Amino acid sequence: MIVGTLDGRRWFFVLSAGILVLAAACKGGGTVDAASLGEVARERQLSESDMLAAAKTYVPTGKLDDYLLFASGGHSGQVLVVGVPSMRLLKVIGVFAPEPWQGYGTGSEETAALLASGSMAGTPITWGDVHHPALSETGADYDGQFLFVNDKANPRIAVIDLRTMETVQIVTDPLMGSNHGGAFVTPNTEYVIEGAQYAAPLDGRYASLDEYEEKYRGAVTLFKFDRERGRIDVDRSFTLELPPYWQDLADAGKGPSAGWAFLNTFNTEMATGGIESGNPPFEAGVSANDMDYLTLVHWEKAAQVAEQPGKTVTIQGRRVIPIETAVAEGLLYFVPEPKSPHGIDVTPDGSRLVVSGKLDPHVTVYSWAKIQDAIANRAFSDTDRYGIPILDFDATVESRLELGLGPLHTQFAPNGVAFTSLFLESAVAKWNYETMELIEKLPVHYNVGHLAAAEGDTREPDGKYVVSLNKWSIDRFQPVGPLHPQNFQLIDISGPQMQLLYDSPIGIGEPHYAQIIKADKLQVWTTYPETGFDPVGMKKGEDVATLGRERIERRGDEVHVYMTALRSHFIPEHVVVNEGDMVVLHITNIEKARDATHGFAVSKHNINLSLEPGESSTVRFRAPKQGVYPFYCTEFCSALHLEMAGYLIVRP
Amino acid sequence: MIVGTLDGRRWFFVLSAGILVLAAACKGGGTVDAASLGEVARERQLSESDMLAAAKTYVPTGKLDDYLLFASGGHSGQVLVVGVPSMRLLKVIGVFAPEPWQGYGTGSEETAALLASGSMAGTPITWGDVHHPALSETGADYDGQFLFVNDKANPRIAVIDLRTMETVQIVTDPLMGSNHGGAFVTPNTEYVIEGAQYAAPLDGRYASLDEYEEKYRGAVTLFKFDRERGRIDVDRSFTLELPPYWQDLADAGKGPSAGWAFLNTFNTEMATGGIESGNPPFEAGVSANDMDYLTLVHWEKAAQVAEQPGKTVTIQGRRVIPIETAVAEGLLYFVPEPKSPHGIDVTPDGSRLVVSGKLDPHVTVYSWAKIQDAIANRAFSDTDRYGIPILDFDATVESRLELGLGPLHTQFAPNGVAFTSLFLESAVAKWNYETMELIEKLPVHYNVGHLAAAEGDTREPDGKYVVSLNKWSIDRFQPVGPLHPQNFQLIDISGPQMQLLYDSPIGIGEPHYAQIIKADKLQVWTTYPETGFDPVGMKKGEDVATLGRERIERRGDEVHVYMTALRSHFIPEHVVVNEGDMVVLHITNIEKARDATHGFAVSKHNINLSLEPGESSTVRFRAPKQGVYPFYCTEFCSALHLEMAGYLIVRP
Repeated sequence: MIVGTLDGRRWFFVLSAGILVLAAACKGGGTVDAASLGEVARERQLSESDMLAAAKTYVPTGKLDDYLLFASGGHSGQVLVVGVPSMRLLKVIGVFAPEPWQGYGTGSEETAALLASGSMAGTPITWGDVHHPALSETGADYDGQFLFVNDKANPRIAVIDLRTMETVQIVTDPLMGSNHGGAFVTPNTEYVIEGAQYAAPLDGRYASLDEYEEKYRGAVTLFKFDRERGRIDVDRSFTLELPPYWQDLADAGKGPSAGWAFLNTFNTEMATGGIESGNPPFEAGVSANDMDYLTLVHWEKAAQVAEQPGKTVTIQGRRVIPIETAVAEGLLYFVPEPKSPHGIDVTPDGSRLVVSGKLDPHVTVYSWAKIQDAIANRAFSDTDRYGIPILDFDATVESRLELGLGPLHTQFAPNGVAFTSLFLESAVAKWNYETMELIEKLPVHYNVGHLAAAEGDTREPDGKYVVSLNKWSIDRFQPVGPLHPQNFQLIDISGPQMQLLYDSPIGIGEPHYAQIIKADKLQVWTTYPETGFDPVGMKKGEDVATLGRERIERRGDEVHVYMTALRSHFIPEHVVVNEGDMVVLHITNIEKARDATHGFAVSKHNINLSLEPGESSTVRFRAPKQGVYPFYCTEFCSALHLEMAGYLIVRP
Repeated sequence: MIVGTLDGRRWFFVLSAGILVLAAACKGGGTVDAASLGEVARERQLSESDMLAAAKTYVPTGKLDDYLLFASGGHSGQVLVVGVPSMRLLKVIGVFAPEPWQGYGTGSEETAALLASGSMAGTPITWGDVHHPALSETGADYDGQFLFVNDKANPRIAVIDLRTMETVQIVTDPLMGSNHGGAFVTPNTEYVIEGAQYAAPLDGRYASLDEYEEKYRGAVTLFKFDRERGRIDVDRSFTLELPPYWQDLADAGKGPSAGWAFLNTFNTEMATGGIESGNPPFEAGVSANDMDYLTLVHWEKAAQVAEQPGKTVTIQGRRVIPIETAVAEGLLYFVPEPKSPHGIDVTPDGSRLVVSGKLDPHVTVYSWAKIQDAIANRAFSDTDRYGIPILDFDATVESRLELGLGPLHTQFAPNGVAFTSLFLESAVAKWNYETMELIEKLPVHYNVGHLAAAEGDTREPDGKYVVSLNKWSIDRFQPVGPLHPQNFQLIDISGPQMQLLYDSPIGIGEPHYAQIIKADKLQVWTTYPETGFDPVGMKKGEDVATLGRERIERRGDEVHVYMTALRSHFIPEHVVVNEGDMVVLHITNIEKARDATHGFAVSKHNINLSLEPGESSTVRFRAPKQGVYPFYCTEFCSALHLEMAGYLIVRP
């Protein structure tokens, strides 16, 4: 052993690489007490790679994650915010379903109105099936300002403002029977793309399945986003009528392919099921053909056409460009793609489209240049039965690569590296779309759907992490009943080989897709910018309570209560009303300190608010039968939090 | 350097403890590649203790957590299930609030009826304020069978069956205005204890605050648990009337103190607030006295008294033992305790009661033997104004120990070791209730409320982990908006000194209390025991769909649809009805494979089910206006999951 001194530190040089570098490592400041570490490793039976993975994912107290992952909650109707690499769940954002902890849809007029704006066909909807979150983009790069999500079951799009990470808008799409190809954004978030899935009549009226080809339709809606207002502008949005095939995922072109949107399309068989009557079930009928279509939509041109008189029809109050017009104007083309496609993913430079068909072991890479030539040269092999030109497969495909069983979705890293999920094989395939070589496969547990790569949908992916969104977990976690959590597996892709770092159970919701953004791109508020703020309207409220002006005003049978909340009391503490009075509470949290949130609940009234510092909220209810109803702060705010209470007293 | 060989492994002995033991560690099988570990540590700036903590909390893929932590969700109305030591959120259990991912309260008749049974004063309640989960016990040890939780805002208790980790019962307590001292169980789960908080008239009728002393009351309800049926039996339950003080936390005696229940009581001042009228606010009025009361309830004797004719009165349909009867029968005593007490915790051997008052820096340890003597000797210093005997403070206290600012709650380890949270100091104090010495304090971030120790409420705590349930997180995590997550900090208590291991953000709900059970005590089902199972009734459903007998039956204006779900289709796929028909779906998931869950959603109908393998569910709805409404599986079940769909078609 050689003993030396350097930088005032004692070194041990030992003829063993590991230990030598250990010494070197000690110098670097990242010191490792091999003794106790080894003990723990032995005790917990951790392998070397386990210890490495632990070190790569552990975020010590007081340090922060490098990335935020925004995942859809699936049929929880919510959005999940997860820190990367720690994979800790930082927040569940209430979107389509009420969430009492956030005071979302549990008493405040502001959030009640927001949720009510998502009613469909006259039915209030208190859940959603959130599939695909899309971060707003500027120049095909995540800008950290907004998040858009879809509801597959009840065709809707919600807008989340990332300053507050709260939902600010829900817009419906009455034309569709369901929506799967949303939300995806154009490179500067000019539009939010929403594709239909199960076809239905656009007019929302009855039509027998015998009339499927004539009366059922698919669609893609381009919702115009007004970045200034931070809201979708429905009146400036439009829909393209599509044949009654099933649209699936979508992506927007960028770089050379900017101005175009791409949607997978399956059930070109126009199967209508009916297993109970001896027909092939959907699963068979929809998978009969060897080829389906990739749908090309020239959204930039379509936006101009939609403005021209006579080019659109109005259905259920929405502007629709009919198929014939779309074809005549050169807005709509098909390209054949292998059967039952799922993923359509544009490469970071926008030069290629990667398609994977879950019943075909290959990924198919289309050249955008070739597609443009084919369109220019009108190299159509045919038109479909609705007259939509079908580009020639061989004229547009650049190459194909066999990856394995059930390829679903592709994400990207720098230098042509791509990662594709293999659902049936339960693996992630690493390959290169420039050299078209399969580099490596990593097994995952189990049944991976989508993948999310760090900055993976931008023009410049980071190449640091991929998260595998596994649909099944089976035996990977302590049992929690027949309903199993999903499993996010974090994978380190920064080295020559993929390394599985972490299994992250998702025990709330069933995420379908996620996006990962560098945390430093976000500009998040930790309190509201002014006292009396309405987070739904994103401005100061109209008729809010202020410190020193707390009061109770009777206006006819309406009793208006202007109440403030400050550690550790409400003003007023007594609210006395009569049976049947309409009580209107205007409550403001006048705190300024970060995290000084107050809740507000009224016993037996189904009312709970979460008032963050500066927030003002309104509650309106009819006073029930006579009685004594305590109200109190539901957020543990201070040592005297239990004393932060009052009485609503209803006189006979 | 000495090089030797042992157990067929090459050893490096180096005159450096660390490296020497590294070699030793390698032998043990827990090998550590110091080289790359050191690199990662340097790169991520992890200290030695960070690396140790990472190794102590990391659970590799395919391995399982040792413990499960059940945490209240606070005003989320749900329960959280967290793995320990990984601190991963394994499941959110829907309890008082609908949860669409679980199909809880979003369309199934079974869960709708369960939630409706929790309506209060005629108002449907769709949230709750869950404070204190209690695992069922046998012989004062967690038996892993059931979990009970309270709703503070709307006085209710829910029962969760831990075989399914689903809610099976919600019972209301109409006598109380609010409930904080629940849920706590007696040593064999004979009863579930629920204490009130903010006083109100027991009859639910109007009374002015001027009549507070005469007409307002506190209460403690003992809900009889029928373990065979796995349900609370309301008819065999009873309530003790208490003065209009505010009951707080509770605990049940064990060992020598078995048969008794203990509740903290504050606002013995009977302050009624009214800051807006110049009165002292509650926070001041409630804290005026130096001493409040510890309430002693002889529940075992009370249960006998409640059965005797004339010993109870009936209020709102519930049996109530009046204060005078309780006093006369020797069921009810007070012991003075320092002002504004919060935690009341019985030591594992049942010999001592530990009380902490949040405005007093001490913990006060009462001797159960001394209390028994004082009762036997009628050593009463006085009675309160309701005639309840007050035992002499000095005659019952064993000793007091100053711990720090804002002591709230105490948990236990073996050998007299206790841990008490210090809210104002943001620290956890380790001390010994036998030697009455303060051993150590560990800072936490920030504002710790309750603590949860591994098996901490049993007669034999494990002494391995304590979780600090911090109410504020402020700057500990990447910002996610004005509403901050809470922070569970995992602490290793197995060594001579506490070591902080992990910061775990809780971004859904605001947990107040948790219990930690060894995972191997649970007997969790991973599928339902038979096909056609109703998880709310915990038995096979009455009128369920079975394979081969799928059908659509019209009965008058009711259309009964018997549907099965199996990868990857529903039978039938077409359901055609008329406007206004009452549609009754009977759906069974006939899968047997673990994790083979199917969802069921109907477009624009506010219906989503989660059908785990074997589960059957019923949906009843009035067919809306004419139209075409796709239905589909919302849980990604297979490669042809998107094809698992059908059409509900409503004829004009």
